[in-house]
Amino acid sequence: MRAEIIAVGTELLLGQTVNTNATYLSQGLAELGIDVYFQTVVGDNAARIRQAIELARTRADLIIFTGGLGPTQDDLTKDALADYLNRSIELHQPSMDKIEELFSSRGIHMVESNRRQAHLIEGSEPLMNDAGLAVGNALTEDGTHYVLLPGPPREMKVMFEGPAKAWIRSIMGEERKLFSRQLMFAGIGESSLEEALIDLIDAQTDPSIAPYAKDGEVAIRISTKALEQAEADSRLEATEQQIKSRVGKHLYAREDIPLEEAVIRLLRASKRTLASAESLTGGLFAQLLTQIPGSSGEFAGGVVTYTNMMKHKLLSIPMSQLEGTDAPGAVSESTAALMAERVREHADSDFGVSLTGVAGPAESEGKPVGLVYFGLAERGKPTRVFTAHLSGNRGIIRLRAAKSIMYRLWQALSGAEIE
Amino acid sequence: MRAEIIAVGTELLLGQTVNTNATYLSQGLAELGIDVYFQTVVGDNAARIRQAIELARTRADLIIFTGGLGPTQDDLTKDALADYLNRSIELHQPSMDKIEELFSSRGIHMVESNRRQAHLIEGSEPLMNDAGLAVGNALTEDGTHYVLLPGPPREMKVMFEGPAKAWIRSIMGEERKLFSRQLMFAGIGESSLEEALIDLIDAQTDPSIAPYAKDGEVAIRISTKALEQAEADSRLEATEQQIKSRVGKHLYAREDIPLEEAVIRLLRASKRTLASAESLTGGLFAQLLTQIPGSSGEFAGGVVTYTNMMKHKLLSIPMSQLEGTDAPGAVSESTAALMAERVREHADSDFGVSLTGVAGPAESEGKPVGLVYFGLAERGKPTRVFTAHLSGNRGIIRLRAAKSIMYRLWQALSGAEIE
Repeated sequence: MRAEIIAVGTELLLGQTVNTNATYLSQGLAELGIDVYFQTVVGDNAARIRQAIELARTRADLIIFTGGLGPTQDDLTKDALADYLNRSIELHQPSMDKIEELFSSRGIHMVESNRRQAHLIEGSEPLMNDAGLAVGNALTEDGTHYVLLPGPPREMKVMFEGPAKAWIRSIMGEERKLFSRQLMFAGIGESSLEEALIDLIDAQTDPSIAPYAKDGEVAIRISTKALEQAEADSRLEATEQQIKSRVGKHLYAREDIPLEEAVIRLLRASKRTLASAESLTGGLFAQLLTQIPGSSGEFAGGVVTYTNMMKHKLLSIPMSQLEGTDAPGAVSESTAALMAERVREHADSDFGVSLTGVAGPAESEGKPVGLVYFGLAERGKPTRVFTAHLSGNRGIIRLRAAKSIMYRLWQALSGAEIE
Repeated sequence: MRAEIIAVGTELLLGQTVNTNATYLSQGLAELGIDVYFQTVVGDNAARIRQAIELARTRADLIIFTGGLGPTQDDLTKDALADYLNRSIELHQPSMDKIEELFSSRGIHMVESNRRQAHLIEGSEPLMNDAGLAVGNALTEDGTHYVLLPGPPREMKVMFEGPAKAWIRSIMGEERKLFSRQLMFAGIGESSLEEALIDLIDAQTDPSIAPYAKDGEVAIRISTKALEQAEADSRLEATEQQIKSRVGKHLYAREDIPLEEAVIRLLRASKRTLASAESLTGGLFAQLLTQIPGSSGEFAGGVVTYTNMMKHKLLSIPMSQLEGTDAPGAVSESTAALMAERVREHADSDFGVSLTGVAGPAESEGKPVGLVYFGLAERGKPTRVFTAHLSGNRGIIRLRAAKSIMYRLWQALSGAEIE
């Protein structure tokens, strides 16, 4: 099956928005074993959207649109496709009810244009939007399949992974499908991981082995095409074992979850709890953990002690430790240890972690950008301190710092040896 | 002048690379006053590249290619265009000399395929590559202009900003260029903003008014074409005043910055400080503020009291306030007020804010998903509490909650009246 992705939105043509939707969908379609030959971007203009549809029909069996499903007069995708196919526009009552409910629950007047978000092309399947208001559409005519997804990436992803993928699988029928496993690694960079596996990757024919970097982690996807799961599994399993024998100690999950979710699961399984004291990451570490639903059972919370005064007040760290010519300073091994211990005591949790360092852009206390100390305190055990020299801009250093101590914590919880 | 951008590269169609080149070029062309009507992505395949060229010729005067200028057999852009135009391929000697020099200076044998990087389509202008090896090309035939740029963004940007822009300007002559202003709004949704301005937007001819949603904020871009800045400014100013007269109280910046940066600037200007106590947002509010370099002068830090025990221990909130049949509970107006007051006192800051609510997916304390209370404590003033009923999934509710209280804080700081 051949697909074409049409992203609709003048903001893309003005360069105000990066077309990450096309990237995400291309990846997702590749995983389904569907080839993408073209991606097109077209503005909020009915005539040009129609032109893009006419062309895509000649070269693709599956046309996926993103964008143009919103409430405004600029949102034209459904109208343009309905017009092209000589179909009318109908109202999808469940979506309309949801929209009306939302406005009334907020006590705001519903602007009439919001009805457009409940529009369905006549005879199409609704694709429910669990992250927003605009309902998606899916339909087939003359052997061409059309899928309409919203433009905001958060909504698009949820709809694609749920109802859209299910619909696409149903139209694919008996084609050989791509089966994949995803292995997630932490504490190792993409290039080191690739180096450790380079001969396997180079010799790969089937299954294929593809490493790629995620946000702070590295994933390896092993894939094979097969008619059914059992046939794929035997091939995938053999490849997975080869990979594990080399880099297994960095493998934290066999599904696509972030490292913090693996940490929460290990805490839950062992009935232990965690608290955090952050300086340079300013809440990012806590924020990553609390993204996981239900994490309040394992993550008690913590402090963001962005200034020395706050380290003193909230964690009772003596000012003499933090300031003065002979003081170790805020960015030091001993401060990291104290922060982890104090927050663990305050929270009465099993683990306490701390992060203190220099995120940049300027150095601090005469210490260089990228230098970070981490504390890991555990009830009844001696506190450990780790050091890292991280590179990248401010945002990347903050993320890498949060992921670094998350990895140490994962090691401590999974019983892996700490090097 | 109308342009089309053709990005060449199978890695884009597999979703391995994000097409940031198209975004960058679209911005650059918009600044030159050139309209981009389509962006196309095509793989490393001669027949499909040719098909993309044939189509683009029918709808653009200027076709800009990125990618496919490298040394490998997969790099086909020059060959495909030369073939389409019935032109031969020539060697650009200065580029060839540069390539040979590089290899000999490094003492490495030059692989023969590197000659391809010095190829020029017969009769085209070379565009020198100051950041890499592959020479760019520019040519005009039958009224259509073609510009070939390399794929790696670092090389593409340098070539576009230098020789390519100069060449494009030379073919444009005295055309008018686009001038824009960006206005940033908070505390109002995209559809309400549009409704307030709908007659202006509908009547827009020049300047144009385009609202679009960013992460938690809404932007309006007003644009006009003019020969020079002064001419543009008078028109842009008049439109800006019209917009301000209607929705000015939501306008927090006249440049593209997030709301938290506007808050940090106002705190800095008035020499005031802030601390936060977060429950449902789990560190997100602090994380947004600490993304801004230098924010430690204004943001002292705060606490993430994800559990009731932590609210009690870190903020000294009585357990009788939080738990028990008659207790207000963690998600309540009075807890929000206490959290904001206590964190302000602990940090000895001018402002203390708090966020407590239900992020979902499940309800909490019998309170519905999306219900959030915010506290805003200010030194020497009575504490205020705000309530919101937010919709969306867990991630969206958390983000909207953080932005909601950020907006209240911005109002308090900018002296805007609180409704």
